[in-house]
Formats: sequence, C-alpha cells, structure tokens
Amino acid sequence: MQAEIVPEILPVILDPDMAAVVREKGEEHGVEYHLQSSLEEILGDKGRVSGVRISGRTYEVDAVIVAIRIRPNTELAKDAGILLGESGGIRTDERMLTSASDVYAAGDCIETFDLITRRHVFFQLATTAVRQSMVAGINAAGGEARYPGSTGVTTVKLFGLEVATLGPTIATAEKIGITPTSVRITGSTRLTYYPGGKDLTVKLLANPANGKLLGAQLVGEEGATLRANFASMAAHLGLTVQEFAEIETCYSPPLAPVWDPVTIAAQALLRKLRPPLAKTSATVSNG
Amino acid sequence: MQAEIVPEILPVILDPDMAAVVREKGEEHGVEYHLQSSLEEILGDKGRVSGVRISGRTYEVDAVIVAIRIRPNTELAKDAGILLGESGGIRTDERMLTSASDVYAAGDCIETFDLITRRHVFFQLATTAVRQSMVAGINAAGGEARYPGSTGVTTVKLFGLEVATLGPTIATAEKIGITPTSVRITGSTRLTYYPGGKDLTVKLLANPANGKLLGAQLVGEEGATLRANFASMAAHLGLTVQEFAEIETCYSPPLAPVWDPVTIAAQALLRKLRPPLAKTSATVSNG
Repeated sequence: MQAEIVPEILPVILDPDMAAVVREKGEEHGVEYHLQSSLEEILGDKGRVSGVRISGRTYEVDAVIVAIRIRPNTELAKDAGILLGESGGIRTDERMLTSASDVYAAGDCIETFDLITRRHVFFQLATTAVRQSMVAGINAAGGEARYPGSTGVTTVKLFGLEVATLGPTIATAEKIGITPTSVRITGSTRLTYYPGGKDLTVKLLANPANGKLLGAQLVGEEGATLRANFASMAAHLGLTVQEFAEIETCYSPPLAPVWDPVTIAAQALLRKLRPPLAKTSATVSNG
Repeated sequence: MQAEIVPEILPVILDPDMAAVVREKGEEHGVEYHLQSSLEEILGDKGRVSGVRISGRTYEVDAVIVAIRIRPNTELAKDAGILLGESGGIRTDERMLTSASDVYAAGDCIETFDLITRRHVFFQLATTAVRQSMVAGINAAGGEARYPGSTGVTTVKLFGLEVATLGPTIATAEKIGITPTSVRITGSTRLTYYPGGKDLTVKLLANPANGKLLGAQLVGEEGATLRANFASMAAHLGLTVQEFAEIETCYSPPLAPVWDPVTIAAQALLRKLRPPLAKTSATVSNG
C-alpha cells in the first residue's frame, strides 16, 4: 500500500501518463495505491506501529516507510556566515567554493546549477554529489577543476521496470514559464523479429521556443537507464531535437534496432515542432 | 575453425588487445582460430565442399563461409557518367545528391563522410544506409534534409559478448597520421556490491593533438552497445575527452554504478593526455 498526496505516483520525475505505466506494473504485483490521499495518523503503542489512517480510513500495517522531500542541512554553513542561495541550499561557484575563503561544499546541502532549466535547484543525487566532491577535492588540494552543472539524470528500478528520467516534467516546466512540446512512443529495445527485445516507452519534451531537448522519461524492462545517459549528454550540450535525432546509433539484430526508440521519439517530436513537409515542400526547389 | 590472414580477429573494428578478449571467449566455446593463415584451396567435388587447405594443411569441413571485405557496386553509376569519389564509392553531397541532376544515392554503394577522421570512407552499415536513404528520399520528394556524416558506430554479438565500437583502431589512425593516446580499463556495468553486474572492458582513443575523443571499443556481456551510442554522440559532436568525462550518467545500485565504466576510462585517458596534477599544482593559486 502506498499513499500519495498528489494524483499520481513519482510526480517529481514523471508526467502522469508515464507514471501510470509504472503504477499499473505495481498494481499487477499487488500494490494498493491511495492517490490524492494523505497520511493522517500512524497508530500503535509501546513503540510498535499497528496501523495508519489514510484519508479517514484505518489500515492495519506491519511497518511504515515515510518517503518525503529532502531538505538540505545548511545550519552549520549558516552559523558560519556562509551564503545560501535563493533556493535555500549553500551557494558555491563552479569550483565548489563557498562564500568563505578556502571552504568548499558539495552534495545534498548545496544548490546545483540545472543545465537544462538554467536555474539553481536541489539535485540530491549520488552522481551529482560525487562529481561535485571530486571537483571540490581537486580545488581544495590546489588543483584546478570546474563542475559545469547537472542534468539531474536519474534512474530507479521498480518491479523489473527501469524508470530513467532527466529534465523537468511538463508541470514543472510550466511553473518556470515553458510550455513543452512532447511526444510519447513505445518501441522495442532490439530488432522486433529477433527474440528477446522488450517494450520501451519513451517520452521526450522539447522547448518549442528554441527547439532544444528539454527532458526524457523512459520506462521499460531494459535499456532505459543507458538511453537516459544518451539523452543526458544531449541535454548537457544543449542539443536541439533535430541535432539529437541525427546522432547515429549502432545496429545488430540481437542487440539494437536499426532506429533506436529514442531516435524514433526524437523524429516524432521534430514533426510536432515544425510544420509538416507537405506544407513547406511547395517553397523548396530541388535543383 | 576460423582463418584470418592478419595476426588477430576483427582487425577492422578492434585493436589486437581488445580482439584477444573476444577470441579467447570463442576459444572457450571450442572455436579454433588460425591467425596469419590464408585459405589456399576449397576442396570438394560434385558441387559439395569436403575440406579446406589453410597454410599448407588440410582440414575436413562441412561448410565454408567466406567473409571478406565488401566493395561498393558502382558500375551502374559509372556507366551513367556519375562521379565517383577518391575512395571509389559514389560521391554525394550532404543531400545525398550525386553529380547527376535529380539522382540521389545512399547506402553501400556510396562513400560516407567519417565525422571522426573527417575523410570519405566506406561504412557499409545498416544505420548509415537507412539514415542516408531517409535524407535522399526527403530531398528527392522535394523536401530539405541533410546527412551530416557517420561515426561508424557498430555492434556485434559473439558468444554472449557485445562488441561495440566506433572510430579508427590504433593501426588505422596511424595510417592517417594520428598517433592516438589510449587507455583500457575493465569496470562493472552495475554497482559492484549489487548482484548481476557484468565486467565491461572499455578502450578509449584520443587524438593528443586536440584532446578529442577519437574512438571507443567496448566488450562485455551487457551494456556495450548502448554505451557505444553514448560515445557516438560525443564523437559526432567533436567532444574533447574532458567534455566527455563531464557528462553526467545516472546511478542506481541495481542498474548502474556511480561512475560509469566509460567515464572511468575517460578520466584515466585524461590523466594520460595532460600532465598529472602534482606537476602543475605548484603554479596554481587557490585564493
């Protein structure tokens, strides 16, 4: 049983249509989801939990796991007079240097530059933390290194499904003034006639103002994680969807399809971003 | 049994040290390799093969598969007066237009622009062919599309091993005047403490003249193919090894390590490309 105060699970990383794919897989495995429901009370006595009250109804439970948002622990920095950013996390420069001379910070307590939305945000991710720590360490030891920022690419495994994402959801993008163009396709991770391929659902978001890739959400039994890294490179470098679609991927029947699902999604997104050929062909000369 | 005229198998896509990993896997499965050996005669009668003579010795066989280099079939184009390139394949522009007005060409018969070596070469690959054909088709139908060139990224499966590569081998690079800096590491495809990860051997090549990624060779039971696509994007865009190493990859114990093997290889390559920290730190000021 899982209670979510919002209408769909995984709201930070997935749009509702993609989250539904994951939730349905959970339901197949017997998970009961209580959406738009709040945990009102944890029941029990003598230090032992016996039940929970969710939206007025009581359920017997053996254990409760509370998974809510993380807040950066900045008290030590604050007490030391170190500047915090607008977001509330410790502010650093690209060298991970705080406002205090020779004091570096990295990881969950700082705010990170989001390479996609170009804002300072919280990415409490292990990969972000280790990369920042390496940069902080090199600089603290007298070397020279810079941390360019993060795409926030992340992955999680749920009931055999890889759920890998980067970039804002549509709702998050709208909050910062972008109305994304998006597309969702389901392709196969290998050539369809060859046994062993798995369905992969790919959603791509673009910023219609500049044609750039804004985010990717991938759900499937294999290959979502590494394809999110592929999209992470594109987003890091600010590629347009056109440029992203042009990147060649390798092919071999037992390993990969001729057109990768991510490329198929990018091509479909491109058709939504620009007028269809039929409308422009009249103005194009061919020799 | 496999006979190769050269000293190691897969000489077009792998350096000998990486090819040895693949050959040893074949040997485990009972394949007998005859290296630096040439097929001198195919024996048999009444249209049925009975044996082969390889470097003076005769072997009984049931079948012979001859897998030698492919040559583009350009006779039709040549007879029509269409220009061929220096390499011998049909020359096209970025729109896949040949020297004949309104005649487009794509696929195995043409020469392709190699995005890494910046030369016109033969990439007889399905992905190259379908991308070129799409561009040719759009242009032939009055639209406007361009094919930027190919990284030649390719993958093949042998006895459960994914062998995925792009870019020239060291020998090929030397032929065109580049002496690559290279590194080879073996990492795990998932977090080492989590069951299920597989060894992945990654070799990266860089051009020391400009610090750019020149090629990648990956061999392992999983994840080589999609990581080659990741390197394909970097090579396509002309990323330096430094820029390549900075691309964030996602992490989750059952799916991916904190530092991807490709990133570890890129960091190791970076240390070979530039003087170690100890030599430069004396000249770097820290505040």
